[in-house]
Amino acid sequence: MAVTKVEVRSGAYYDSVVLMQLQRSLAALPGVLDAGVVMGTDANKDVLAQSDLLTPEAQAAGADDLVIVVRAEDEAVAQSALDQVDELIAARRRGGVEEEYFPKSLESAAEMMPDARWVLISVAGRYAAGVARDALRLDKHVFLYSDNVSLEDEISLKQTAAEKGLLVMGPDCGTAIVNGVGLGFANGVRRGPIGVVAAAGTGLQQVTSRIHQLGSGITCGLGTGGRDLSEEVGAVTIRQGLDLLSRDPETKVIVLVSKPPAPKVAEEVLRAARRAGKPVVVEFIGYSAPARQLDNLHFAATLDEAAELAVQLAASPPAAEPAADLNLERFAPGQRYLRGLFSGGTLAYEAQLILKGYLPGVYSNAPLDKSYRLANSLVSQAHTIVDLGEDEFTVGRLHPMMDNDLRIRRLYQEADDPEVAVVMLDVVLGYGAHPDPASELAPAIAKARAQAEEAGRYLEVAVVVTGTDEDPQDLNAQIQQLKDAGAWVETSNEAMVRYVGRLVRALDQAANPPPAETMKPVDLDVLHQPLAAINVGLESFTESLKAQGAPVIQVDWRPPAGGDEKLMAILERMKKK
Amino acid sequence: MAVTKVEVRSGAYYDSVVLMQLQRSLAALPGVLDAGVVMGTDANKDVLAQSDLLTPEAQAAGADDLVIVVRAEDEAVAQSALDQVDELIAARRRGGVEEEYFPKSLESAAEMMPDARWVLISVAGRYAAGVARDALRLDKHVFLYSDNVSLEDEISLKQTAAEKGLLVMGPDCGTAIVNGVGLGFANGVRRGPIGVVAAAGTGLQQVTSRIHQLGSGITCGLGTGGRDLSEEVGAVTIRQGLDLLSRDPETKVIVLVSKPPAPKVAEEVLRAARRAGKPVVVEFIGYSAPARQLDNLHFAATLDEAAELAVQLAASPPAAEPAADLNLERFAPGQRYLRGLFSGGTLAYEAQLILKGYLPGVYSNAPLDKSYRLANSLVSQAHTIVDLGEDEFTVGRLHPMMDNDLRIRRLYQEADDPEVAVVMLDVVLGYGAHPDPASELAPAIAKARAQAEEAGRYLEVAVVVTGTDEDPQDLNAQIQQLKDAGAWVETSNEAMVRYVGRLVRALDQAANPPPAETMKPVDLDVLHQPLAAINVGLESFTESLKAQGAPVIQVDWRPPAGGDEKLMAILERMKKK
Repeated sequence: MAVTKVEVRSGAYYDSVVLMQLQRSLAALPGVLDAGVVMGTDANKDVLAQSDLLTPEAQAAGADDLVIVVRAEDEAVAQSALDQVDELIAARRRGGVEEEYFPKSLESAAEMMPDARWVLISVAGRYAAGVARDALRLDKHVFLYSDNVSLEDEISLKQTAAEKGLLVMGPDCGTAIVNGVGLGFANGVRRGPIGVVAAAGTGLQQVTSRIHQLGSGITCGLGTGGRDLSEEVGAVTIRQGLDLLSRDPETKVIVLVSKPPAPKVAEEVLRAARRAGKPVVVEFIGYSAPARQLDNLHFAATLDEAAELAVQLAASPPAAEPAADLNLERFAPGQRYLRGLFSGGTLAYEAQLILKGYLPGVYSNAPLDKSYRLANSLVSQAHTIVDLGEDEFTVGRLHPMMDNDLRIRRLYQEADDPEVAVVMLDVVLGYGAHPDPASELAPAIAKARAQAEEAGRYLEVAVVVTGTDEDPQDLNAQIQQLKDAGAWVETSNEAMVRYVGRLVRALDQAANPPPAETMKPVDLDVLHQPLAAINVGLESFTESLKAQGAPVIQVDWRPPAGGDEKLMAILERMKKK
Repeated sequence: MAVTKVEVRSGAYYDSVVLMQLQRSLAALPGVLDAGVVMGTDANKDVLAQSDLLTPEAQAAGADDLVIVVRAEDEAVAQSALDQVDELIAARRRGGVEEEYFPKSLESAAEMMPDARWVLISVAGRYAAGVARDALRLDKHVFLYSDNVSLEDEISLKQTAAEKGLLVMGPDCGTAIVNGVGLGFANGVRRGPIGVVAAAGTGLQQVTSRIHQLGSGITCGLGTGGRDLSEEVGAVTIRQGLDLLSRDPETKVIVLVSKPPAPKVAEEVLRAARRAGKPVVVEFIGYSAPARQLDNLHFAATLDEAAELAVQLAASPPAAEPAADLNLERFAPGQRYLRGLFSGGTLAYEAQLILKGYLPGVYSNAPLDKSYRLANSLVSQAHTIVDLGEDEFTVGRLHPMMDNDLRIRRLYQEADDPEVAVVMLDVVLGYGAHPDPASELAPAIAKARAQAEEAGRYLEVAVVVTGTDEDPQDLNAQIQQLKDAGAWVETSNEAMVRYVGRLVRALDQAANPPPAETMKPVDLDVLHQPLAAINVGLESFTESLKAQGAPVIQVDWRPPAGGDEKLMAILERMKKK
């Protein structure tokens, strides 16, 4: 009859590779049916229970205890297996890279290999932040594989790093590729023109693997850890990465991969990406992008598509958008708002949606989001788009596609507002609509513009004409009349709204230049110097770096103060002095 | 000094074209500075106030009162203008199409023009539902331009129509193009292979205009009114339209345009669209699509893109997807769930996201939506995806990319579940990862499949291998080992998940065939018979149909019972008998 026996070792610390090897060695002993070797956390005990390995002694173990369970054919076999535990651990340590000399501390490792600019950390989560702090004190970049690190630690580590021009990738960063060398889990990817920054480890692996499969390659793949784009952390590492890749002349296209960030952070990150001066493929997995493309940003819907887009863009770089001649100096100080006076409800809706890519928010009587509902549909506030075809305006009154009276009155009202820079109008042609809308709107546009000019301002009027050359109104003549009145005319709503979005965003930026970046720039060398590293934690990462030909030194790390948390805190305070 | 004078006419009914013309005629009289002619709703009184035309008498008017306001140079001019009101109205009615004989009722119009299959309705909202009911009684399709119609009326009208195989486009339907003739507001668009269904009037106009501008054309453009995709209405007209266009041999590509529908309705509509048997371009403006393409569905991000996609698809139709050989008969009755056991968090996340296009919901320890959080990460429920790399699993345990133990145990557990049809696994290669994962996973997959087979079931195991030919593990050998164990292997997570999504959806549909459509199909003739119509309301629509060469008859409509609501209700009840 099968017998299950347990040994609990309090406060024992072993590398998790050692634990896995021990479990396998135990399970492989003759007569042993199953074995479990885990730290005694609740989750791990649940796992033991699933395999029918949870005895009362194991159940009683604490999170810091090492639990060794053996189920064997009989009592003697089980006991004999447990008796061999120390021997099996020792056997493991004699194999592998044991014969070399391992320094006992990060400091001595750094002295032994002064060229090592990186420290890889994969010790248990509760010790990881301390090691990372030591690494930053030594002016090393950090690849922090460990998970179960607190948010507070992540914030303080990244702040320190940003002040010193250093990178902290992680915690819970699975993957990076720096100057051709993979850190943590990383695929063999050829060199090429694409730089990747990712807050998603296997996202980075899937995208870089697909880039390789498609025949292209990367300059680097920078990881950040999944929490980097939380509001608390504020995307410090993502922004450092974008800044690095923007400055890197070898990177022609940037790919940005993450789960959808907090909205405020998404806005900041996209703003940073827009300043990159090169195409950026954005894959915020599951994010509702305002459009496929926004200036230099290209939104992908899946990881595969992100890779495909990046390869396409690298192969045939889009012509740099001609610095749209926005002539900001035409406008008077204080002119900054747009006002959209639409007859088409869908066009008004799409306009608000596209403007999400340019402006924080647009008020409307038919808003995308209730918090931007106009208090009074007849009075604009800040950026406003009014749908004049809404039910409230059409009781006993013709639709604004037939009757321009209300729209023209509102146009004059907007032109009088010293904060208004642009008015958008839609002119919908076709059967059923006004037989000659430009005959009324063109003079009104000219008058509104003159009105603003008299007041020392410039009023831009942008118009989309929706129609075809088979419409009864004569499309081209309508467009010409509107142009003659000084309007900016497009035949696509999207094109018109994008023009206005760019213009209003530029006016805003001219009036409120973004605050200068307070982070110290990371030296570009980090991408191009041969990678050398100090590894603290999983020995397999040392082996992996060696296999890739990168100089590496393994630290024979043990928890400080024997893992005693109070003593650790005292030691940490002493270091800070 | 300017003087403002007002006349209020209680319960007077005039066509809104008449009101607009009256306002213009008054404003054009010598000495008149401005004029307003509106029904006395609150919104209209606000508009009068904006133009400084709201006197106390106008303020006191009710919603059913006609308010005529004139501001003139002096009292005498203002009074003289008001004295001319009846004359100006009469002058208007003598012009236009007045000389013809107008039947006084829908019934007599229908007798005069029995070929008229359509009734266009643009009377004031509160009378519109009654006219539409009359039209349905006469077995006519309805184009209901009027807005301010209640939701209850819309629901009952559409239900009646669906039972009779008739269409009710609207209320608040601005646009349709049927057999080359535009109803309401519609552009001149050439004939071509694209059929459009839209719950967004100017959306339909923008898309059809762009299709024309791009050199292609349409079979028809069907409007539905914006509320059709609300949960209450349940997309009756959209579904009728999709069904019609699916059956129409001339329509090669369908475009579906709407604001984002209620989630439940979106799901139903997309299910209907998937059955269309031809490509459907979906532009739910601002909708977060699970992917660019899902079977025959192509998601667009803007109206422009919807038009471009449709034109491309019509020009080079995609090869019909080979009826993926899903071999459903391999599975035992009751096998229906998928279980994903992922080592990569991002791959698990993307999988859930892509599956949104196939399944209602997937449980996870790291779910997209909290309501699908697993009660216990160790126990799957329904469709489940587990991220085994989550912190809860990695305390003192190696990451599942290095240690397959937990995953293999879970694989056997899933294989034992009689409701499980498919298990998904990711195998992430590269530096740092397990040196030969297939050597452990392939035998486990074979064993799990054998285990299911012994129990009289078939277990599909789908695997994505993320890696490159430069990885240390030998990509091709890994794939071959997994295939030899009977796994379905892809190198793209997206491709693997889509295969599983199709398979599980097919199993579900085989077990729960969708309920038969209860609506009576609309006769395809409606798209191809020369359009003839009866117009009730805005005379300009009659003129517009004539301009397009379509036979039309205008009804000289007056509110029933002189607009008395009680009497109207009695009349309506009498008709029903």
